[in-house]
Order: sequence, then C-alpha cells, then structure tokens
Amino acid sequence: MPETILSSMSQTIIISPERPFTMIGERINPTGRKLLAREMAAGNFSRVESDALAQVAAGAMMLDVNAGIPLADEPAILAQTIQIVQAITDVPLSIDSSIVAALESGLAVYQGKALLNSVTGEEERLEMVLPLVKKYDAAVIAISNDETGISEDPDIRFAVAKKIVERAMDYGIPREDVLIDPLVMPIGAMRFAGRQVFHIVRRCRDELGVNTCCGASNVSFGLPGRPALNGTFLAMAIAAGLTSAITNPIEPEIKQAVMAANVMMGHDQNCLAWIRANRPETSDEGSPAEGRRERRHRRN
Amino acid sequence: MPETILSSMSQTIIISPERPFTMIGERINPTGRKLLAREMAAGNFSRVESDALAQVAAGAMMLDVNAGIPLADEPAILAQTIQIVQAITDVPLSIDSSIVAALESGLAVYQGKALLNSVTGEEERLEMVLPLVKKYDAAVIAISNDETGISEDPDIRFAVAKKIVERAMDYGIPREDVLIDPLVMPIGAMRFAGRQVFHIVRRCRDELGVNTCCGASNVSFGLPGRPALNGTFLAMAIAAGLTSAITNPIEPEIKQAVMAANVMMGHDQNCLAWIRANRPETSDEGSPAEGRRERRHRRN
Repeated sequence: MPETILSSMSQTIIISPERPFTMIGERINPTGRKLLAREMAAGNFSRVESDALAQVAAGAMMLDVNAGIPLADEPAILAQTIQIVQAITDVPLSIDSSIVAALESGLAVYQGKALLNSVTGEEERLEMVLPLVKKYDAAVIAISNDETGISEDPDIRFAVAKKIVERAMDYGIPREDVLIDPLVMPIGAMRFAGRQVFHIVRRCRDELGVNTCCGASNVSFGLPGRPALNGTFLAMAIAAGLTSAITNPIEPEIKQAVMAANVMMGHDQNCLAWIRANRPETSDEGSPAEGRRERRHRRN
Repeated sequence: MPETILSSMSQTIIISPERPFTMIGERINPTGRKLLAREMAAGNFSRVESDALAQVAAGAMMLDVNAGIPLADEPAILAQTIQIVQAITDVPLSIDSSIVAALESGLAVYQGKALLNSVTGEEERLEMVLPLVKKYDAAVIAISNDETGISEDPDIRFAVAKKIVERAMDYGIPREDVLIDPLVMPIGAMRFAGRQVFHIVRRCRDELGVNTCCGASNVSFGLPGRPALNGTFLAMAIAAGLTSAITNPIEPEIKQAVMAANVMMGHDQNCLAWIRANRPETSDEGSPAEGRRERRHRRN
C-alpha cells in the first residue's frame, strides 16, 4: 500500500489507503472570494489566519494554500501566506498555484515536506514542475488531463495519470509521492461524473498503486444542498479507494460523511472518533435530537 | 444488467443497477417494538397502516412486512397484515418471516409478484423455500449464510450466495429473481463489516450478475448517530453496486444519502429529484439554512 509522507516543522502525516481519510482544508483560496483577495493583496492576513485555525479545529489534517489574485504578485503573496499559516498551525500544507514561479517561491519558504498542487500531463508542465518536486523533495498532485484537455473517457484520464507517474519516476520521484487527481466534474452538467471518478480512483489503487486526491466541491457545482452532495460523493469515492481530498471540513455534512466513511472502512479504531463526535451529551451538531429519536424508537 | 421485476395489483417496480436505488421500508416489523407487537397480536393494525403510509410518503418504493410475534399465530397475522397494507398502498411488498408456513400464507394472499424474505444457504431452507418461490412466481432474498453459520471471510459468503443462485436456477427460478443479502454485521463489533459487504456486493454484480439487498440498519448497532452511519454505509454500498436495501426512509439522513447516491450514480435524471427535495424555498428538512450558508459563502 502506498504511503505518502508529508510534514510541517513539527507534524508528520501519512496518506494511505490503510489510514483515516486525509481532509485537506480548501478555504485559504481567494478564487471567488473577493473580500479575501482584496485583503491578501493588501497584506491583511487576519482572515487567512482565522480560516486556517477554524479548518484545523474542524478536523483538517492539512491545509491547501492558494494566493491566485489577478494582477497581484502571486509568488510573493503565496510565500508570505505559507509563512503566516506555518507560524500558527502545525499541519502540513498543500502549495497551490497554476504559476510555476509561485510554486517555487512557496517551496523555498516551506518548512517540512510539502504537497505541491499541481502538475498536469501537459509536457511543458511536466518539464517545469517535476524538477521542482525532486529538488525540494516534495510530493505532488497530478491532474489527469493533458494538452488535449479533459477526456470524458475515464480510461483516457487513467492513461494520463499513468504517464505522469512514469515521468515522475524518470525524474527520481517515487510513485508514493504522486497523488493522482481524477478530475471531479460538475455532476449537474455531466451525469456520470461521479462514476468516472470512482472508476479512475479504483484503477489508480489497483493498477498503479498510488494515492489519490481530488477537489471534491466541484461535483455539486450549480446544485442546491451542496455540502450533503459533497459529503456523500466523498464517502462513495472513499469506498472506491480515494485517500485524500481538498474540501471544506467546516461543513458539518462533509465532516460527518468523512467520519462515517472512516468507520465503514475500518479506519476509526473501535469507532472512538465517531463515538466522541456523536455522543448525545457532548455533540455540537444535532446528536441530542438523534439520541431522543433513538429513545423514542425503543419506547415504541 | 439484471432486472428484478416486482409488482402489486397496480404498480410494477424494477430493481436494477441502472435504476434509482430501491428503498424498502423496514418499519412494519414488531421485532423490538413491544407496543406494535401487542397491537398486531390483538388485531389492531392502525400503527401498521400509519407506518405504511409514512414510509411510502418518505420515499419507500417497497415495504417489508414482518409479523414475528412470539406465541402468536404468525401465518395468520402476516397474511392479515399483507392484506391490510395492500388495501391502503400501491407499492410491492417484501414478505418477511423465518417461518416457512408464514411465508406461504403471505404468498397465498399477496396480489402481484412478491419478494420473499428470505432463504438461506441451509439445505433444509433451500428445499422448503425455493419451491414456494417457484410456485408463486415470486422473487427471493438469499442470505449468504449456511449450516456452518455466517463466515467472517467474505469470499466464503460469496460462495454461499453463488450456491443459492445455482440451486434456484435448478428449481427454474431465473437469476434475476434472486437478490443476494451479503449480511451486514455491526461495525462496532466487527471492524471490517463494511468492507466485507462492499466486496461481496461487487462480486455479486460482476461475477454472478444478480441484484443485491441488505438490511442496512444492523451496521450501526450499538453506536450513536445511527441514521448518519446507515446513510453513509448505504451510499458506499451503492457505489459498490448495491441495488436495494431494507431500511428506514423516514430518517432524513438515510433518505438524503440515498438521494445523493442516486445523483452520484447518474440515476437521478438531470438531478431533478435532488433539486426538488433541496430547493431552499420548498424543502422540509433544513435546506433553507443550507441556502443561507451558501449565500454567506458567496458574499465573503
């Protein structure tokens, strides 16, 4: 079983099919958050700090950090954001940018073994990003598209994933340091988006022996009840072998579905985490009502 | 793809991996419900009627009917219960008893093509129940245990399932009229109970080409937050290929997880059922709050 080992200064985490699912907090990302973008561009990181702490408190085992602000100096802001987040939390980070110079400036300041988000199967990206992964001894999220775009055929996406793993190994990057992103498309627009992901994840686990990571929230784009859809999607993907996701652990439905999926995979030893979170007397999200319902059933 | 066709007087349903998941309401069952048991034994079926209507209103596509009351005349009460439920609902029924005479008396009064719950891999049961299935042109739930008990090895449970399917075919019962129950054990006592089910369900789909049905609620026995665990378990089992379950659709977490799983499998055309149930202005279970949360995110 592949073990992807990531670290901060003080904390090491292992992503593996035989461990609890790794939730990577998605909130430190100015895309679509205008206020956060303005604040980060102006050097105000108070919301970054509160988002970091809140996600870790909610169960994020890693945090994704993105500083993609139009017309701003992304390499400088990303490096600064990483330093600020590392100063107040212990969890390892995912350094997230589509700009290679920003990935490198993030890696240069990062303390520990980082996850780089991301490389694709495009030749130019492979040649620019994989040397950085090797140089900084990082791990990398590999997105299963290439110059031809995102295929609707999951077996073509799998073939792209396989190519990236092989190219990484050519650069001396072990396969356990490559996490395949199967690409989650909006299910409202693409009916089989979920099954495509389950199929690719299963093949990555069974045939490539690599871990997987996806941006989960995209699946529910445009639909109501998004946290419930995202949570159910994650549980189903976990059943297929998904080992990590960039998602929002602050949403109760997502956190609860991931915790329940850990129980169902046998990764919550003696169900202790579940019991702690769902004890009627201590729970903070509706379980007392649940407790009452159980008692009512017994009485009836 | 196997299609199990069941009917009442006026309604036909098809259980299939290419259709929405079939929820079979579990509530008409006096086991552990002392008040209901007393009422049914005394010929008072008002709670049976309200449970039937409530489950159908909550989305049950079939109802399981059990009359297992100690020291009572189970064959007579089961037949009476079936007639009463068929008089007020249109959904097909699952006739549920461990007593063969009760199964037969239920079949004798049932209008339509019934689901018989259940047969096991025990020789004596096979020889008594399969002729009834054939005689009444019913379908049957086949539980994957035999004289040696319930194996903890899922491949042995699968072998029992395979044997039952073959024996049914010897009796002239087509494989699409056999639904395998992989046997859901309590995960609080058996850490890999969930993965065992996913494994057996997948093999039943891929190797036997048969539909599957499980009693879902057992998985959470003894744990807090049972509806949430049951819902997540069902979604994960659906991802593995589970086509039906005997469960409680009145629990919002279970209903929501099954609806979301239908979306994720591509079985909710244009996501219409999901959208209808989760529209902020019309939902009856918390979606207005969800709508507010979404708006807050957008504003930030």
